[in-house]
Formats: sequence, structure tokens, C-alpha cells
Amino acid sequence: MTSNLTERYLKTRRLTEHLCEPLEVEDFVVQSMPDASPTRWHLAHTTWFFETFVLARWEAGYRPFSGDYQVLFNSYYNSVGEPFPRSRRGLLTRPTVAEVFEYRHAVDERMARLLGAREGGGSEEIARVVELGINHEQQHQELILTDIKHAFSCNPLWPAYRPRPDGATAITVKASGWTAKGGGVVEIGHAGHAFAFDNEHPRHRVFLQPFDIQDRLVTAGEFLEFIGDGGYRRPELWLSLGWSTVREQNWTAPLYWVERDGAWHQFSLGGLRPLDVAEPVCHVSFFEADAFARWRGARLPTEAEWEHAAAGVALSGSFVESERYRPRPVDGTGAGLAQMYGELWQWTASPYTPYPGYVVPEGALGEYNGKFMCNQYVLRGGSCATPAGHVRATYRNFFPPEARWQFTGIRLARDAQNSATAR
Amino acid sequence: MTSNLTERYLKTRRLTEHLCEPLEVEDFVVQSMPDASPTRWHLAHTTWFFETFVLARWEAGYRPFSGDYQVLFNSYYNSVGEPFPRSRRGLLTRPTVAEVFEYRHAVDERMARLLGAREGGGSEEIARVVELGINHEQQHQELILTDIKHAFSCNPLWPAYRPRPDGATAITVKASGWTAKGGGVVEIGHAGHAFAFDNEHPRHRVFLQPFDIQDRLVTAGEFLEFIGDGGYRRPELWLSLGWSTVREQNWTAPLYWVERDGAWHQFSLGGLRPLDVAEPVCHVSFFEADAFARWRGARLPTEAEWEHAAAGVALSGSFVESERYRPRPVDGTGAGLAQMYGELWQWTASPYTPYPGYVVPEGALGEYNGKFMCNQYVLRGGSCATPAGHVRATYRNFFPPEARWQFTGIRLARDAQNSATAR
Amino acid sequence: MTSNLTERYLKTRRLTEHLCEPLEVEDFVVQSMPDASPTRWHLAHTTWFFETFVLARWEAGYRPFSGDYQVLFNSYYNSVGEPFPRSRRGLLTRPTVAEVFEYRHAVDERMARLLGAREGGGSEEIARVVELGINHEQQHQELILTDIKHAFSCNPLWPAYRPRPDGATAITVKASGWTAKGGGVVEIGHAGHAFAFDNEHPRHRVFLQPFDIQDRLVTAGEFLEFIGDGGYRRPELWLSLGWSTVREQNWTAPLYWVERDGAWHQFSLGGLRPLDVAEPVCHVSFFEADAFARWRGARLPTEAEWEHAAAGVALSGSFVESERYRPRPVDGTGAGLAQMYGELWQWTASPYTPYPGYVVPEGALGEYNGKFMCNQYVLRGGSCATPAGHVRATYRNFFPPEARWQFTGIRLARDAQNSATAR
Amino acid sequence: MTSNLTERYLKTRRLTEHLCEPLEVEDFVVQSMPDASPTRWHLAHTTWFFETFVLARWEAGYRPFSGDYQVLFNSYYNSVGEPFPRSRRGLLTRPTVAEVFEYRHAVDERMARLLGAREGGGSEEIARVVELGINHEQQHQELILTDIKHAFSCNPLWPAYRPRPDGATAITVKASGWTAKGGGVVEIGHAGHAFAFDNEHPRHRVFLQPFDIQDRLVTAGEFLEFIGDGGYRRPELWLSLGWSTVREQNWTAPLYWVERDGAWHQFSLGGLRPLDVAEPVCHVSFFEADAFARWRGARLPTEAEWEHAAAGVALSGSFVESERYRPRPVDGTGAGLAQMYGELWQWTASPYTPYPGYVVPEGALGEYNGKFMCNQYVLRGGSCATPAGHVRATYRNFFPPEARWQFTGIRLARDAQNSATAR
Repeated sequence: MTSNLTERYLKTRRLTEHLCEPLEVEDFVVQSMPDASPTRWHLAHTTWFFETFVLARWEAGYRPFSGDYQVLFNSYYNSVGEPFPRSRRGLLTRPTVAEVFEYRHAVDERMARLLGAREGGGSEEIARVVELGINHEQQHQELILTDIKHAFSCNPLWPAYRPRPDGATAITVKASGWTAKGGGVVEIGHAGHAFAFDNEHPRHRVFLQPFDIQDRLVTAGEFLEFIGDGGYRRPELWLSLGWSTVREQNWTAPLYWVERDGAWHQFSLGGLRPLDVAEPVCHVSFFEADAFARWRGARLPTEAEWEHAAAGVALSGSFVESERYRPRPVDGTGAGLAQMYGELWQWTASPYTPYPGYVVPEGALGEYNGKFMCNQYVLRGGSCATPAGHVRATYRNFFPPEARWQFTGIRLARDAQNSATAR
Repeated sequence: MTSNLTERYLKTRRLTEHLCEPLEVEDFVVQSMPDASPTRWHLAHTTWFFETFVLARWEAGYRPFSGDYQVLFNSYYNSVGEPFPRSRRGLLTRPTVAEVFEYRHAVDERMARLLGAREGGGSEEIARVVELGINHEQQHQELILTDIKHAFSCNPLWPAYRPRPDGATAITVKASGWTAKGGGVVEIGHAGHAFAFDNEHPRHRVFLQPFDIQDRLVTAGEFLEFIGDGGYRRPELWLSLGWSTVREQNWTAPLYWVERDGAWHQFSLGGLRPLDVAEPVCHVSFFEADAFARWRGARLPTEAEWEHAAAGVALSGSFVESERYRPRPVDGTGAGLAQMYGELWQWTASPYTPYPGYVVPEGALGEYNGKFMCNQYVLRGGSCATPAGHVRATYRNFFPPEARWQFTGIRLARDAQNSATAR
Repeated sequence: MTSNLTERYLKTRRLTEHLCEPLEVEDFVVQSMPDASPTRWHLAHTTWFFETFVLARWEAGYRPFSGDYQVLFNSYYNSVGEPFPRSRRGLLTRPTVAEVFEYRHAVDERMARLLGAREGGGSEEIARVVELGINHEQQHQELILTDIKHAFSCNPLWPAYRPRPDGATAITVKASGWTAKGGGVVEIGHAGHAFAFDNEHPRHRVFLQPFDIQDRLVTAGEFLEFIGDGGYRRPELWLSLGWSTVREQNWTAPLYWVERDGAWHQFSLGGLRPLDVAEPVCHVSFFEADAFARWRGARLPTEAEWEHAAAGVALSGSFVESERYRPRPVDGTGAGLAQMYGELWQWTASPYTPYPGYVVPEGALGEYNGKFMCNQYVLRGGSCATPAGHVRATYRNFFPPEARWQFTGIRLARDAQNSATAR
Repeated sequence: MTSNLTERYLKTRRLTEHLCEPLEVEDFVVQSMPDASPTRWHLAHTTWFFETFVLARWEAGYRPFSGDYQVLFNSYYNSVGEPFPRSRRGLLTRPTVAEVFEYRHAVDERMARLLGAREGGGSEEIARVVELGINHEQQHQELILTDIKHAFSCNPLWPAYRPRPDGATAITVKASGWTAKGGGVVEIGHAGHAFAFDNEHPRHRVFLQPFDIQDRLVTAGEFLEFIGDGGYRRPELWLSLGWSTVREQNWTAPLYWVERDGAWHQFSLGGLRPLDVAEPVCHVSFFEADAFARWRGARLPTEAEWEHAAAGVALSGSFVESERYRPRPVDGTGAGLAQMYGELWQWTASPYTPYPGYVVPEGALGEYNGKFMCNQYVLRGGSCATPAGHVRATYRNFFPPEARWQFTGIRLARDAQNSATAR
């Protein structure tokens, strides 16, 4: 086993704990809605993943750290046993936060020993699972931030995760333009030996009509125009399911937008601050992204269009390591597609379905992706809460169309204006 | 306006009323679940459609039959006004059934007069809307049957809509085979001048991998094997959302299957009768179809695959005019694809999304299809409750993945076994 | 068996059918909320009562009219078998209304034969059960009216059960006064041989403090003052459970009050008409009655106070036979307590509990009253929907504190102003 | 202000914090159901009570400790402002536990200073409110234990609050007997100058029929017989509302009873241990108490009967200071009524209603008791989680009939067997 893998393992584990530094013990416990999990649970579950899928298989003389943890910190792997009910994770106060850190450290030590010792047979398969575990933990790093943000937003004191100065950027964002893309048979999906999730496979051909894609993300200021034009009150702009959600949930603005003394504010991990109209609009559902697109006479890109457009775009942007925790306004000077990576996950028009030829992996790890391919939409590009190096052009994130607590934004597309060129 | 259209209009309207003949007045009133509607409402709503979208626009000196009906019998056209809440349709006892028939006949008379008089300008647009109204009414003809079947199933007396003899067919269904289809760029979607819904447009190119498609529908007998093998108790066979539905709804068999004295029976519009294992399995959700496919090591076809495979298959099968109201077992002698039309709607693996280049029609009729393109799956082929002539190869029906009260069945597909030929 | 009983039996049965005369077949089917039942069900259930508790026990060679009806029309008698779920009564369309009437007439014929024949042994017990059945049917007569009123109120067409002219009374109701009652040990509850429900037994002693009781019912005009004074917006006036109900249900006025063009209207069995401020306020819950009393610096009477005050008051008022279906304004000239009977059921401050020494009857009829003695409040006096002769001073009606669809009103009480006389 | 009051204030405050000693920080945060509150909240709310109702009124130059806390820690006093929603108390992680303790200590210091300084005017009213605050805090001491017990019971690790040895008592409880009480006019309710809650006033006369009362509490062993006799499966034993609760909640035993390897265990604050059949049965609802009584051919005592029987019984038993946290089996040797105080709250047959002549106190403190007098039942006697000195013969506790998480048990009563003596 290459020392490289051990190092990346330990680095990932350390980043997770680094993200917890601003938290009080109390903050680790709370579950503010069934979709979110307590930080404590994220810490333990990612550890359980390595214990269950690596140590239990390959550690000589393996004995479980705790029989109870095997049930408590299983998320949804039915093949491993009946998991503790998701919606009740916030009822657990034990094991304590300190005990969970002990669990982490014990597993880290055993993992390091195992990885260090292995240079002979079987190590390739271990490496594959450890790589998956690292990527799995990175996903939970992002969830730690989105879930604690949601929890803090339930507190009228508006606690800040890492207090940040208010100051809005002085940037004026220029009007967006369109980048034209030709159609035809193109290839999408992952190829090659680098790590990718099962759902990115296999690379395959699709037929695209020519299309245009917006060269930056939609801003909060542009979204304010939608609101001002009655966006949340006009059923003709919404999918039927979106419209019933708007009415049931009384949506009148993106999540975390708060009206104070007649002015819009936005709750962020840095605290409550005045809305910055230059920033990309954040915390919108697929329904809102879709309605906004319809209002603008455009549509969302399909995931194939997005991936095709992303070819050749440099993989840079604000990731979690920037400790900014909010999307950066576009500086407005560059050519080509801006804000494709980092900043905000971008809703696509594509329901999350298996690629042609997709094969679910054998065993419990086959439950990782495939079984969620229903009533969810694909998002692309990563966000300011995603660890750098975690995403790539083929990466498929997915959430239900009503979800708003992730760092989600909007990039528009449209059919090519001169479609004569298409066929 | 051709007399042909008038005739087809009147013939469609008569078929609707013919379907109501076996009903008692009481049967017209009940709404057994929010997804279903009372027969009375179907009768009135289809009439409202012609009144609102034809008479109100083109009848000289138009005056509404009743101001109240405009609200009561609007289904979901927000542009026409706030509709009466769907889930409360069963609370209305007035207008009475007799008054609803009067409404129908008054509108029919005015429609006949309008259509007879029109041979000059504007008639093409009228014809288009009348054609849409006819197809709309045909859809409600099917719903009248599925909704009354559901309502009757709530009654422990198991009333029969049209009593039918019990007798199971003596047919033994032979093992199914696969028909291989090559891949490449193919075209799907509607083209030409014949009527088709907006969601079937535009005809466009898609890229298909080679695939095999099952040459008949899955039978009740085959589904019994799935049940016997623990199908409803094995989470690994199900989508995550499907598995939680199985548990919440306590599903252990298709809808309308009833165990009596240790033997499976099936409730049909002909009454309660012993299960016929030769019949195609009916009243399964997408979740069940998908789980069955996984259990068989196969998958569902995409809608593009289905449509591509249907090319050249004759449009025949059991439709509503057969007054059979249940799918006919395959006779087992033919070659090629059997049971592609009529019999049962076939779940596809495709979420219901707009085709590339799809444009929502202007005005209220734009609410017909587009706004439902979320969290639903496409079904193809028509059923034994569909009026003959209503479906075609490009026809896209759609229901949520948990819906079971429609006449829905399963046809399997799989990736081509010799995929070398694909690229 | 006296011919008197047979006559009373038949007269009661005829009145039930008379109440159904204004209804269309459609109206018999609908169940507008779980607490209400379809008219069809009331017709069948009252018949089931006589069949189950009289014919099945005493008819020679008894055979059930229909095995199915024994389940379908059992309300809540667990000892007789698992009843069909209450909230699903509105899903049944069969047996039809005509078949239910056939059931009624067949049972009536058999009952008349049985009662005519019996003059020998056992007849006293039969008479007791028939008497109970008659009173049971009278209770359902009232429910037929309250349930159909609720069903009609769900229809935006506001259908009238029996159309009545709008005209408000010209009466000006004089200010109410108080009637003082002394305290001490008094007796309440039923004694003697005349029919009374088990819950009115045994007659027993209670100790009362001296109190005053209002000499008429609270009027709609007085209740308007409560509304105008912010009654529905001031938590300090309400019980905690009442206040949460006000907020959850968005109560802003009594049930069936409708604001139209800036003026209050009231939906009644005669149709929608302008509010008559002289009428007693109707369709208020216990919570509203209690809050109104608190607002007036008074309270509701206990049931013992009410019964003690009622001693000697003539049993007259508007009952169902008046076909008025709304309470009559007090004429304002009499002395003593007005509107004690008929008009409206009067909420008391007393939770519905067993009297000291109360014994539940043996057998299924023991389920009639006792098992409902929890979380309900006692009402006294009868209403304009109660059959004449059904109530008496000791009669205990009961409903949950949030119920509003019965004909319920308010009479106030207060502790004696000169309480020195009390002890 | 007597130093006595200051001492009692401080002693009460210290006991609250003593009860928190076994808890981890994580334990203070969780809210396991809407009826329960986090320990953190109890600590802060009791402090808020003294700040709001004492310091804010009488402290010279009073300034709030924190404007936010005034909203966050208001329970239900609408007159003081809109409280933070009860069901969301568990979502708050800030202020932290340490900050809440700081809040407590700051208020304690200011209270001690205020109480020490006051010996002149106004001190009687202060003393009254401080006395109320002490009693209020004692009620929350009990809730801290019952709420943390519920929270811990949601954790499959079964954490112990204070681990206790398993050992069942060797005691054999002798058969219970009845104590006969004569009837007539008796007085109940509080009189005199000692502290009592408003709901215990005024002392007043009631008329009682002669009755018998059980001389000890019902044991777990006796309740096992009820279970063994099908108690939870026989509708005829239950109130209608109780029976629907049994079915909806799947009750098959008291709360916290757990079947393990074929034997009943009981979760307690000392951990999970085998059921001790000699202990009084605990954590039963009113519904279960009532059903058990019916099964035994008895009934529950009314609160007047209980209070009348308690006259002269010494106020001793297991209170919270015993640190036993479970009821002690009766030793079986004494005469007269055993286990009247401490051990377990005893359900009475009496709905919680105002006494005749009850007057709600002026101002916000009037919201303490009166507004809850609906759909609750009175319990008497105190429990092993109640602070010693908190209860008395006239004390009225109250909970809804389905509540089970309090330390609640059963004492039976019955009508006098020789009722000739009654009148």
C-alpha cells in the first residue's frame, strides 16, 4: 500500500476534525430535520465505514470497537443489518462527543497500521475501498457544514459557525452571456483508472442537440428581480409539484433569506448579514431553479450538456479549504465559462438515473448510489463547502427537487438559437 | 369543419356515457382517494373542457351554462381560475348526476351546432382543440374505470361493475424470449400531421446502446414466484424509496390481490375471482416492476428503447371496447413482440421529462402536460381500459412511481448480451 | 306488548324517513368528515340496531337480513364484532339507498309482527330494548340533520335542505338577567320508571354552592361584540387547548358564519342568509362558549347547576317537528328561565363522567354510553334538531370540546353575588 | 424578608443543579418528544421565572440578563410575549450549558441580594411570588428526571442516569385490602396560610357516597396478571379513546417495560433491570389504570375521595432525596393506607376542573394553572421523583389521560359494599 494513500487517509480524517473546531459540545448533538444529521453522527458514521468495510474484512484478528456502534452508526446499508432510524439520530446523547473522537482515533490507528503493513496481496482491493471511504468522508464533510448551518438557522440567536465580517463585495457583476455548444454524438461518464463513483460509469455515447449555456451563475440580484416580478405567486412559472410545495411551505424567497427592517439579509456560516446581490443566488431548490429559468425564457442544462460544456474548463473555484463558506461573485473579466466548479452545486434538468450499462457493485457497497436513483435530480460542479479535489467533470451529485439546505445555485441553458446547424 | 370530426366528437361522448350504464346513482358520487375522482366529476369536467376551450372562444353570443360549474369542474388550469380542491371532489353531491347529464347534453348540442356551422375561417384551430378535447375525454374514460374499480375495492361486498364469469383461461403461457435490437442514433417522438399530444414532440434523435426486449408481458404466475422468493421482504431488490413505500403501505402483493382461504384472488371490474396465473400481472407500481426486474437480473426498458422496439408492431390488443377489462393472456404462438398495445400500460425506466426542443403550448392548454414533468415515470402501450385508437407508438403516459390503481404491468429489457456489436 | 310501543316504534321510523324526503340520492352517500356519517348509513345503522338487539334475540327462527350488513352497519359495538371503520363509511356506494330502504321496511315488518305477537313472558325486557332503540333512532335523526348540514356546507353552491325565506326576525332581544339559585345538598339524575339512558343514573346527591344562571341564551349579536373586541385573537380568554385549536383551525367566527360583501351571513338548512343578531348564537364549540363566558366575567354552569335550575321549567321550545331548523329568538316578555329546552344544546362546564354508583349495563348495550366518558363535555336541553319528547331535565348529551357541527349554544352562570348565604 | 426564604430559595436552586451532576453536556440538549424538554431548558426556564416575575418587578434598576432569553425561556406565558415554540426546544444548542449555568448563578446572586435587602414594604408579595417560584422549580426538578429518563430510553445503549444494582427486593407483598370510608358532606381543598397552588383553592364542601379505598398501590406482579389475561387485547375493558390509543401506539405493557430473552425488564434511571414484581406498577397512563380497575371489578377513586381518605395519613414515602428513583415495595406490615405519598402519582377518576369559586390570579401568573383545565386528569400523592415537602393532601397534579412518562401508578377504589349506610 503506498504511503500516499495512508497520508491521504489521515489528511482527510484530520480535515473532518478541523471542521469541528468551532463547535461547542452541544452543537454536535442536534438534528434539526430528518434530512440532516448531528455532527457527532457524521464523525462516527464515517469511522464506522472504515471499520466495517476495511478493518472487518482485512484486519487480522479483527474485533469490533463496539457492537452497539455497528447498529447506531450504520446509515442505510441494509445488508449490514437494520440501521438505527435516521429521523431519531438526534435523540442519542451517548456515546458522547469525546467517546466518538476516541472511536475515530482508535480506528485511525488501526487503519494506519493496516495500510502500512500491506504491500502484498489484496492491497489493490483495499486501496479501492479506502479510496471510496475517503471520498465518502469528503461527502460527509460537506454535510457537516450544511447540517450545522441548518441547525444554527433554527436558533433565533443566529449563532455564527465562524464569524465573518459583513462587508458586501464592491463588485458589480456584468450581464451574463451565452456560450454556444454544438450537438451530435458525444461521450459522457468516467473513463480511466482514477477514482470515480460507480454512478459515473460507464462512459457512454449520447446524442445532444446544439445548445447555449450561461457563462456564469445567476446572482442574488437577478433572483431579486424574479421575486419582485411575483415569481413566488405565479403558478404558470412552476412545475405542478413545485407550486404545491411553494404553497405548503410558504416559500417567498430562498432558504436563509430573512427580511429585517425592510431589507433582505442572508444567514450564513459567518452569521446574519445583508444580502450581497453580486453573489450567486444560493439555497434554492430545483423547483425554484426551474421556475426562475422559465421566467427568464430559458431552461436548466441537462447533465450531459453540462458535462459536455465543462470539457476543458479548469477545475478551480472556492472550495471548503478557502474557509469562505459562501460563493464568490464572479469578477467579470474572464472569457469562457466561469464558476463551473466550487462556489455552488448547479441544478440540472436531469433526473438521477443509471447510465446505460450501469452495474451495481457487489455487496453492501452496492447500496451506495444505485438505490437512490428515483425522484432526485442531478447537480454538478461542487460548492464552497466541497473539499478541493473531490469533484470532477463527471461527478454526479443528487438531491430531491424540494431540497434547499445544500449550497445549490442556478446556471441557465437554452436550445441553440440557430438550430438549423443542429441536424 | 368536417362532419367526420362532429361524428367522432359525438361517438366519444356517447362512449363515456355508455361506460356509466352499469353504475347506480350512488356510485357516481364517491371519491375513494385523493388521486381518484368521482364519475360525476369526470362527466362534468370533460364537458367543462369543451365549454371552456371551444364554446367560450368560438360560440357566437356564448354564455356560460353555469358560473358555478366553471370553478367546480376545473381540474388544474390555474390560468382559468382557482380550481376547486381536488381532494374534496367527493364532498359535492350537487349538481346531481341528472343535472350533470343535462350539462353534457346541452354542451353536446351547442358543440354539434358550432361544428356543423363552421366551414370557413378559424376552423383549423377549432379542429385542433376539439381533437385535443376528444383525446382528453378518452383519457378520462380510462380514469372512470380505474377510479370506480378503486372505489368498489373499498367495499367489503366487492361489487362488480359488469359481472363476468370466473373461469380462468386454460392457456399455458410459454417461457418468454428476448428480441434483440441494435443501437445507434435513432429517432423517437411524433412527426406528421395526425394528432399527438404536445409531450410527444418534437421528433428527435437519441443514441441507444444495443438491447434485448422481452417478447411478452410478465405473467401473474411469474410474479407469484417473486413473492414466493421473498420479493416483498428483501430490501436489496428495491429502490430506497420503493422499500420505504413497501414498509409504510405494508405491500405484500399487487393491488387488488386478496388472499381468501389460502388462495390468491384478484378483484376486477367483473368481481372477485381466483387469480389467473396466465394473465399478465396487473396493478403493480413502478417500484414493484423495478424490483421484479432486478430479481430477474434484468431491467425495465427506457422509453426510447420501447418506442424503437415498437416500430412496425401492429397496433392491436384488448382495448376498452372489448369490455373485457382485464388483460388477455398471450396465446403463445406468434413470433415477434406480443402484447405491445392494449392489455396493460408498461412501466419504462424513464422519468417523465421534456423532449429536447419541447415547447409548452401557449395559454391554458399549456398546462396540460408540461407542468407534470417531475417525479413521474413514463408508461407505454395502452391498456384494456384504453379506448381503441387512442394510443400509438409515440404515446407517453405517466404516473408517479408508487401508483398502482391504473392497469399497469411489466415488460423486461436487458443490455445486449453480445455488446461487442454496440459501438 | 302494548300497541302503544308498536305505534311509537313505527312513528319514530316514519319520522326518520320523513327527514330524508328533501334529499337527492347523491346526498345520502357523502361523508364530509370522520365525525359525520352518510345519511344512508344512519338509515341502515338504526335498522341494524333493532335487528341485532331485538330480532336476533327474540324473533323465532331469526335469520339475518344480510350477513354483510352485520359488519357494515355496526357503529362501535366491539362485542358484536369488528365494526367497519368509521372514517370510511363514505366510501361505500352499495347497498344502494333503495336497498337500504328495503332493509328498513323488512325489519319494520318483522318488528311489528314480533311486537304484536308478544304479550306474554319476556316482553318487559323486549320493551326496554325497543324503547332504547327508539331513543337511539331519535339521536340519529338529529345527526342526520347535523351531518347533512355539514356536507352541504362543503359545497360552494350552498344547497338548501329545505329552502326558507331569508327574513330576519324583527325582534329586539332585551338584555339578559340572572336567576339566583340557592345551594346545599340537592339531588340530580333520573329516578322513576320512565325511560332514561343509563348515564342519567343513579339519582344521587351533590353539594352546590349558590349560583346565578342566565335567563336566556346568548345571542348572535352579543357574540358579535366578543368578535369585535378581539375575542378570537386574545389568548388570555381561552383555555390553552382552545387557543391552540383557534390557531390551528384559523377560527374567527362560529362554524357556518360566512362573510359576504362585508356582512356576516349564516349557512343554515334553509340556505345561506344574513345573520340574525336576535337569534341565539349557534355552532360554537365548548372552547368558544368558555372563552365568551370568561370575556363576560362569567362562566358556564355545571351540569348539576343546570339540572337543578331546570327543575320546574316547562319542557317546551323549538324541536325538529317545527321544521324551523334554527333557534328561535326569545320573545323577551316572559319571566323565569327561557330557552331551556329545544333551540340549542347548552354547553356545561362539566366533563362527561360517570355518576357515583353508575353501573355499565351488561352485554353489548353496555357500550352505549360508558366508554365515551373521557375528554368530552356535557350539554343539556336539546335543540331545534331534536325530536320533541326525546329530552328531559336529566338528559346528558356529550361532545368533545372542539366540536362545532351540532346545534350548540351558550347560557352563562356565575357564583352567587352574595355568597354569604351559601354556607 | 426572612432569611428562611433566602435559604429555601438557595437550597432549591442547589438541588436542581445536584440533579444535573450525573449528566454529560450532550444530555442537556436533547428533546425526545414534544411533551418533554431538554434539561438545559428546565435550568434556564426556572431562572427566567425568577428573573421575570421577581427581579423585573422589584429589583432596583433592573436590566434583563439577556433580551433573547426572555423569549427563548418563556414556557407558555402569552401575556409576557410570544414564547419560543415548545416542540423546537431541542433544536437550540446555544446558549450553551455553561452559559445557562452562568445565567442561573447571576440570577441567584441578584435574588439573594434582593431578598436580603427586603425587610420593609412590599415584602409579603415578593415572598408569595418567590414561594411560588420555589414550588415551580420543584415541579421542574421532577420533570428533569422524567424527561431525561425518556430521552435515555430512546437510546439502545440504555444509559443509566445513576447506575444502581439490579437486585430485586426479596419482599413478598401481601394481598391488598380495602379501607372503608363513610360519605356525606366533607370539605376538600386548601385552607390556611401555608403555600398552596391556586388550583387547590378554595376549600369547599362536596357530597360523597360511602366508598372503599385500596390500602396500597397495585403491584407490577398484579399488572402482569392483567396482561396475561389479555388486558391489552380486550376492548371491553377500555374507554373508547383508550382503546384507540392502545391500537395506534401498539401498547402491550407499561412504558419502559422491555421483553428480553423471554423475561420482562424495566428501564429505570438506574439502568435496565429485571422487573421486580413487588414494586408498584409504574408508568401507566390513565387509560391503563382505568382498564386495570375495570378488569378487577373496581374503579379509580375521585380526587375528593382520595383527599378525604388521606386525612390523617402521615406525609411520608420515597421522595427524590432518597435517590432511589423507583417506588419502594410496601413492606406489608402496617395497618391503614400505605404508599399514599411519594412512590408514585396516583391517577384519580377526576377530570381536572376548577373548584367551585376558583378565581384565576391576576396577571401572567394567572396562566399557571387555570388554562390547562381541559382534557386532563388529576393525580395525587407525589412520587419518588418529587422533592420532599413539595406535596400535601390537597395537592393537584394533572396530566392528559394518555401520558405515561411520569412516575404514575394505580390505587383502586369501589363503591361501599354495604351501601345501605350511605344515605
